[in-house]
Amino acid sequence: MHLSIACLAKPVLYSYFRSSCSWRVRIAFALKGIEFKLVPVNLIKDGGQQLSEQYRKLNPMQQVPAVEIDGITLCQSLAVIQYIDETRPGPRLLPADPKTRAKVRMISDLIASGIQPIQNLSVLQKVGEEKVPWAQHFINRGFQALEPILKETSGKYCVGDEISMADICLVPQVYNAERFKVDMGQYPTIRRLNETLLELEAFKVSHPSQQPDTPANLQA
Amino acid sequence: MHLSIACLAKPVLYSYFRSSCSWRVRIAFALKGIEFKLVPVNLIKDGGQQLSEQYRKLNPMQQVPAVEIDGITLCQSLAVIQYIDETRPGPRLLPADPKTRAKVRMISDLIASGIQPIQNLSVLQKVGEEKVPWAQHFINRGFQALEPILKETSGKYCVGDEISMADICLVPQVYNAERFKVDMGQYPTIRRLNETLLELEAFKVSHPSQQPDTPANLQA
Repeated sequence: MHLSIACLAKPVLYSYFRSSCSWRVRIAFALKGIEFKLVPVNLIKDGGQQLSEQYRKLNPMQQVPAVEIDGITLCQSLAVIQYIDETRPGPRLLPADPKTRAKVRMISDLIASGIQPIQNLSVLQKVGEEKVPWAQHFINRGFQALEPILKETSGKYCVGDEISMADICLVPQVYNAERFKVDMGQYPTIRRLNETLLELEAFKVSHPSQQPDTPANLQA
Repeated sequence: MHLSIACLAKPVLYSYFRSSCSWRVRIAFALKGIEFKLVPVNLIKDGGQQLSEQYRKLNPMQQVPAVEIDGITLCQSLAVIQYIDETRPGPRLLPADPKTRAKVRMISDLIASGIQPIQNLSVLQKVGEEKVPWAQHFINRGFQALEPILKETSGKYCVGDEISMADICLVPQVYNAERFKVDMGQYPTIRRLNETLLELEAFKVSHPSQQPDTPANLQA
């Protein structure tokens, strides 16, 4: 039997402790029980290590995360998570039923396309001094849409009682909301789901406060 | 045999002729040969018809598209496209091989999360008078990343020689780039793929210049 080195090697995750998109992938690895090697990329230090020529080869968007897995390099967190889900055993991150799957993808994309990109580092750097009200505005707009959707779809978790990619997207987005001092009291369903999810081991070990590159003053 | 009315009914697409995310769904319906009912939502008229209370019930994000299909209402174009792909016959929009699929999703998400949301209507309204250079900046940043990726993955189309969701995302994004006068000469691979795809019937019939709500002066 012939196995290539790429298939035997652990996946490599290029990650920044506080990046919500990196955290999504860390949660997915943890839920699936996949061991991986983490390489920190500091988005602030040296003017942003993601902007180096070396890193650009891994992710031409010069953002985290990037993942080396099974001999290919992938970026875009939801593409990575779905690849992991389709190729690895462990709990399904997308449900089997097409309608339920569609709801999971709708919630995931509402966050991953509708909220996060508009309040990420490169956009806020461009916005300049108005960055906090800008981030609050777009997170609130997204959460005002998400709250009634989740009220309908959620059980114990975002869609029914099984963990899914939607939960993987929700928790890091709430973390960003809290960084920008969004009033979470307006979103009781989001808050309840977030609290439930944060109790789970996979969300704890992957948390920004627990990473090898977490600065000492932000460690929990 | 019991069939509900929802299953017999044509899907309903809430669409705006010039919305790139609406166009994605129109392309997917056309590629799959699915008949649908189109309901125009004018994003400009009446202060934006997507902001009405009635429309908010369909899509709480108050954006187009929204789709009523098989008794459920879905928003987020990539969730809709993947639902169509998983439940309808016709050409696959996501390839069967997991690695190839991951590349299709990576390219789709690079556009759908990494470019489009930062240059969509609601963000540009917030940006104000600097909106053209803002849109150019973020489209260029995305295309500078996309060009080398597509150079590697493309054959006749974005990923190899089969049409996929990546192509469905690419063409409407190039349309936006041209609206904002981005110099496409910098992106020969993107330009070549766009030209090839625009020759296909599914891209022609779904084009912004061919919609029931296209203003007379923009009809081709």
